[in-house]
Amino acid sequence: MPGNSFGQLFKITTCGESHGGAVAVIVDGCPPNLDITENDIQQELDRRKPGQSAITTPRKEADRIHILSGIFEGKTTGTPILLLAYNSDAQPQDYEHLKSVYRPSHADFSYLMKYGRRDFRGSGRASARETLARVAAGAIAKKYLQQHFNIEILSFVEQVGSIRADIDHNTVNRAAIENNLIRCPDEKVAKEMITLIEQVQREKNSVGGIIKGVIRNVPAGLGEPVFDKLSADLGKAMLSINAVKGFDLGSGFEGISMKGSMHNDAFILKGDIVSTKTNHAGGILGGISTGETIYFRVAFKAVATIGLAQETLTLAHETVSLKASGRHDPCVLPRAVPIVDAMSALVIMDHVLRHKAQNQ
Amino acid sequence: MPGNSFGQLFKITTCGESHGGAVAVIVDGCPPNLDITENDIQQELDRRKPGQSAITTPRKEADRIHILSGIFEGKTTGTPILLLAYNSDAQPQDYEHLKSVYRPSHADFSYLMKYGRRDFRGSGRASARETLARVAAGAIAKKYLQQHFNIEILSFVEQVGSIRADIDHNTVNRAAIENNLIRCPDEKVAKEMITLIEQVQREKNSVGGIIKGVIRNVPAGLGEPVFDKLSADLGKAMLSINAVKGFDLGSGFEGISMKGSMHNDAFILKGDIVSTKTNHAGGILGGISTGETIYFRVAFKAVATIGLAQETLTLAHETVSLKASGRHDPCVLPRAVPIVDAMSALVIMDHVLRHKAQNQ
Amino acid sequence: MPGNSFGQLFKITTCGESHGGAVAVIVDGCPPNLDITENDIQQELDRRKPGQSAITTPRKEADRIHILSGIFEGKTTGTPILLLAYNSDAQPQDYEHLKSVYRPSHADFSYLMKYGRRDFRGSGRASARETLARVAAGAIAKKYLQQHFNIEILSFVEQVGSIRADIDHNTVNRAAIENNLIRCPDEKVAKEMITLIEQVQREKNSVGGIIKGVIRNVPAGLGEPVFDKLSADLGKAMLSINAVKGFDLGSGFEGISMKGSMHNDAFILKGDIVSTKTNHAGGILGGISTGETIYFRVAFKAVATIGLAQETLTLAHETVSLKASGRHDPCVLPRAVPIVDAMSALVIMDHVLRHKAQNQ
Amino acid sequence: MPGNSFGQLFKITTCGESHGGAVAVIVDGCPPNLDITENDIQQELDRRKPGQSAITTPRKEADRIHILSGIFEGKTTGTPILLLAYNSDAQPQDYEHLKSVYRPSHADFSYLMKYGRRDFRGSGRASARETLARVAAGAIAKKYLQQHFNIEILSFVEQVGSIRADIDHNTVNRAAIENNLIRCPDEKVAKEMITLIEQVQREKNSVGGIIKGVIRNVPAGLGEPVFDKLSADLGKAMLSINAVKGFDLGSGFEGISMKGSMHNDAFILKGDIVSTKTNHAGGILGGISTGETIYFRVAFKAVATIGLAQETLTLAHETVSLKASGRHDPCVLPRAVPIVDAMSALVIMDHVLRHKAQNQ
Repeated sequence: MPGNSFGQLFKITTCGESHGGAVAVIVDGCPPNLDITENDIQQELDRRKPGQSAITTPRKEADRIHILSGIFEGKTTGTPILLLAYNSDAQPQDYEHLKSVYRPSHADFSYLMKYGRRDFRGSGRASARETLARVAAGAIAKKYLQQHFNIEILSFVEQVGSIRADIDHNTVNRAAIENNLIRCPDEKVAKEMITLIEQVQREKNSVGGIIKGVIRNVPAGLGEPVFDKLSADLGKAMLSINAVKGFDLGSGFEGISMKGSMHNDAFILKGDIVSTKTNHAGGILGGISTGETIYFRVAFKAVATIGLAQETLTLAHETVSLKASGRHDPCVLPRAVPIVDAMSALVIMDHVLRHKAQNQ
Repeated sequence: MPGNSFGQLFKITTCGESHGGAVAVIVDGCPPNLDITENDIQQELDRRKPGQSAITTPRKEADRIHILSGIFEGKTTGTPILLLAYNSDAQPQDYEHLKSVYRPSHADFSYLMKYGRRDFRGSGRASARETLARVAAGAIAKKYLQQHFNIEILSFVEQVGSIRADIDHNTVNRAAIENNLIRCPDEKVAKEMITLIEQVQREKNSVGGIIKGVIRNVPAGLGEPVFDKLSADLGKAMLSINAVKGFDLGSGFEGISMKGSMHNDAFILKGDIVSTKTNHAGGILGGISTGETIYFRVAFKAVATIGLAQETLTLAHETVSLKASGRHDPCVLPRAVPIVDAMSALVIMDHVLRHKAQNQ
Repeated sequence: MPGNSFGQLFKITTCGESHGGAVAVIVDGCPPNLDITENDIQQELDRRKPGQSAITTPRKEADRIHILSGIFEGKTTGTPILLLAYNSDAQPQDYEHLKSVYRPSHADFSYLMKYGRRDFRGSGRASARETLARVAAGAIAKKYLQQHFNIEILSFVEQVGSIRADIDHNTVNRAAIENNLIRCPDEKVAKEMITLIEQVQREKNSVGGIIKGVIRNVPAGLGEPVFDKLSADLGKAMLSINAVKGFDLGSGFEGISMKGSMHNDAFILKGDIVSTKTNHAGGILGGISTGETIYFRVAFKAVATIGLAQETLTLAHETVSLKASGRHDPCVLPRAVPIVDAMSALVIMDHVLRHKAQNQ
Repeated sequence: MPGNSFGQLFKITTCGESHGGAVAVIVDGCPPNLDITENDIQQELDRRKPGQSAITTPRKEADRIHILSGIFEGKTTGTPILLLAYNSDAQPQDYEHLKSVYRPSHADFSYLMKYGRRDFRGSGRASARETLARVAAGAIAKKYLQQHFNIEILSFVEQVGSIRADIDHNTVNRAAIENNLIRCPDEKVAKEMITLIEQVQREKNSVGGIIKGVIRNVPAGLGEPVFDKLSADLGKAMLSINAVKGFDLGSGFEGISMKGSMHNDAFILKGDIVSTKTNHAGGILGGISTGETIYFRVAFKAVATIGLAQETLTLAHETVSLKASGRHDPCVLPRAVPIVDAMSALVIMDHVLRHKAQNQ
């Protein structure tokens, strides 16, 4: 199958380039009778949109969402939901100079190898604008999960460059995350991160980092052995986001030096609920949720577009020097937080429906 | 869809518990006219099988593969291929004591929450024996890729506990990998790793580590935007392997502190081939292969089964002390190398077929 | 998976109710470099649109198609194509009287049983307006097949009520089909059909019939054993159209009384091409195309909406008498011809891509 | 995707040629806790097996089913179920004479066009022996549907050649169907059918016919708009059976001459259940079940293998005369009844699970 769909039962199909007519998504499989307004979706989109603060790109994009099907009298009907945002900032001539060059660490070259032609306006389909559709669809899933299961989905910036915050994923809350521009819930570290980003911005450079995802109150029993493990589907979801280079769950890469006797999470009773003393597993065993908090890390590389001069090749194999105009994000992480949230919501939602199908 | 299939066009569907009648896989979508013998497959399986060395489990399992359909006169016919290995070491009474206990960091609890019942004999479907089917199917993909594209798929043990080898993924070869029990191509580090594993074995404990995967000669243009990025599918494939807790590609988690100007891979000509000066991307840009070497890391936690006593709960919520009998792997990594190879082969193979479908 | 997608590799996902914001389709998997304009699509839509002649519904609907993604500089890019037509004739108050009644032989009751609620404006998602999206997507497939394989896709009205035309599917052409309002290429029979429909229209009644589909120049070798036979996928495609009650291929229901010796199609040479003396098979053997012309019949029941009074139930289980306003089609067949064409194109296109994937 | 899987949530994947090692099926997605024995499955297989009566092929085939995974202590565990029957009657030399000939109306030619090579032993994958796997999987679905919903699945021979029985689908029962060799519940007509088949057998010829399928007690609300209508999925299921050339539902092809006022099924109350006065719809409206009995017809062409001499071509394009040895079925219908039952069960089961997923 072509690669623009995600999910089996809560299935989204996205489309749209950065400079075509619109970016849109069809959400197929949403259960009926869920209250959804454009405002529910817009709130999440506003966390993703460009130009929201001094440390994001100054580009203004039209991220106004329209619901064009699937909702009747304010509720889902069970039929497919079309969410669409028109593109308005399209100035194709701005991109004419990119027509014949392979930008370093962008998808220009690989798209051309794949398709034999490409839409060179603002990265075309490879643009980060594509994630608008994910966030819009994720907002619906998030609302369903919150209403039906009290599932709480959060993520925050844990690291920028080498600056790392030490946050307890059990107690972090959305208010603390939204309290600063970088979406790191430790105010002191957040300031250091912002200072670093401002410096990088002045240098016309860019910097990467880590987002930590947290999902609480997931019922035990979600996930499908053996390939569609909940952990594998979360990993794929995160690794499908632009600029993501790594994913780990629970103790992850840092847990490999722990011996089994220390890494194993002993089962204990909390009240009359079977729980675990530690949670190195990150809430998933054998690919299936245990009921403990799910937490994971997502590694983002530095943004490829930078204002510094770089040597690269043209399509005619000539060497050229390239400088971006400067309307780029020095650090993609604060805007990526709602994208990680959305992908978490889409994965959990899909497995909630799959679980309903196979059990009594 | 249920979770026992992997791949879209080169699609495998696996089945089998550790102590049922057999473990098997149907490979659907293999192109016709590929020479395949049981021996081609058996060679890969022998690298995965238990009891192959002093540092793996002493269990003997019947891993003899049978081809029961889809091959005629030594060649694939285009119809589905059934590969099957009977289970012979089944001694269900050995597992009676596990009937009513939740082993720490095993899938006993989560399977029971999911299905309401479980096959408690040797982890049932959650057994690592399930990976036999992956390795068998992967052997077919590997042969096809080698014959048609000269694609080379390798992986090796890079780290055990805190002992890490520094291997150049551009020059490593299979002979060096297969040269020692631990499958680490640096002989000196391999010895230290083996010493550590032997010590852990004596302690009745276990230890984790990292496997590095390498894929060479992948043609540029494989991978599907936006969800089925080659990187996302590789990540899912690896994260679906038992005990895997993390995946990163190219510079991965370690690259996040690099600024854009340093991380970006400049396009250059090598002869008349468009190539890159560095390869922090790990051979994939925008989810699509660039033609550079693909390399990635897979983090394995320490094996959950240990001989040391552990406290845990019974199904009746009583606290008990549990000790495994000792027929377990102190370190799963040497046997996991062919599994990582197989999953690489399955992902690349699937995207080769998807690429053929959509291009001229 | 939810049911609003069709096709595996040339995959369409549709959305939209008759009185929501829009009807739309995302076409995912179209190969790059195909020339496509809005006009190519509009031409097919104009054959489907209401109000095109005296024997169709007088409703005027806005069937103007917009391409919102996936096309750049007049050619497909390989990324998903969004085709969208806004709804403009929405007068929801016209449908208020249908809010609480189960219209006979409509989907009101079954949708309510399925979803617990329904969009009662003009049949909602069950409206025939949904087929607009199919025709739009089919136009792209049709153009690709024509350009790359010279495949010719036609269909025509073979029977209305009991009036049946005897048309040679080997020689019929599009000009003859489009020569009259009913799209029956036998002018004399067409007039009788039109007379019947006008009479039925005056009676405030409706009538059904048969459309015959013809696909020429299909290369031998398309279709997937064993479930995704080309015949099975064509059958599903046609049976998914509103009001269709039957499908048969080649000799079909009428061939069952032929003995094997008469029904079998002897292989012969035509020039140096392997062909068959007869073609009772309808161009498909073992689910795979033979290269002979594919032909099949599609049975449409009479339109459910009629102006005559009918007794039925309200949601409150009271008996009421119901009369439709009269803005309905007395016979759906002339407008269904392009829908049958579109579904043929979608099925063949999908199997063309599947064939490319698995063969060398 | 390759074509050897059927169903989305109750998904079967089949494999096996008539003369390879085995015919098998993996059933993935069966809910846990269903009692299943090999005997449950064998009973259905025995109705399909060759050699069961004087009017079927005298071939003896090993149709003994083995359950190799997914069942523990007599119950399904929720993990994939492998059902396998070894092939034992393999005498490849019997088929050497077919190596180089295209048998009329068989799949020899189309398979060769598709794959470039073929397993010529007894039709290979195109053999009717493949349906063994469908019947085995269908037996599991049938049992689940019976136990959980009291759904009753039946089918019977309605017509052989031109001899047609007039059976009330509302009252027919399995005992009457199984009461004679032809599986036609009208004893008098059954005798005529058997006489015809015996005559055709003596003539070394073959004959086709119609099987009618009946499904009772299906809950209202099953089926997915718009492509995966229950009617479309039933149609595809039946049209994927070897030798099937047509499918219609409810009034079908015979209903097209009815005007809307006569064809429409008025909603009425039966007790306090919303029902319909007539059931021309065949139990499905808008693709979704209404709760009324589902009934449909399946047209089978005459068996292609006949003992009479036929002219055809060799692979080298020479004309030859071909006579089958005589070990063929003169009429496939009595053995096809359990296949139609199985496909009905698989479709309904899949939609039961899909319905559970999307509703509350």
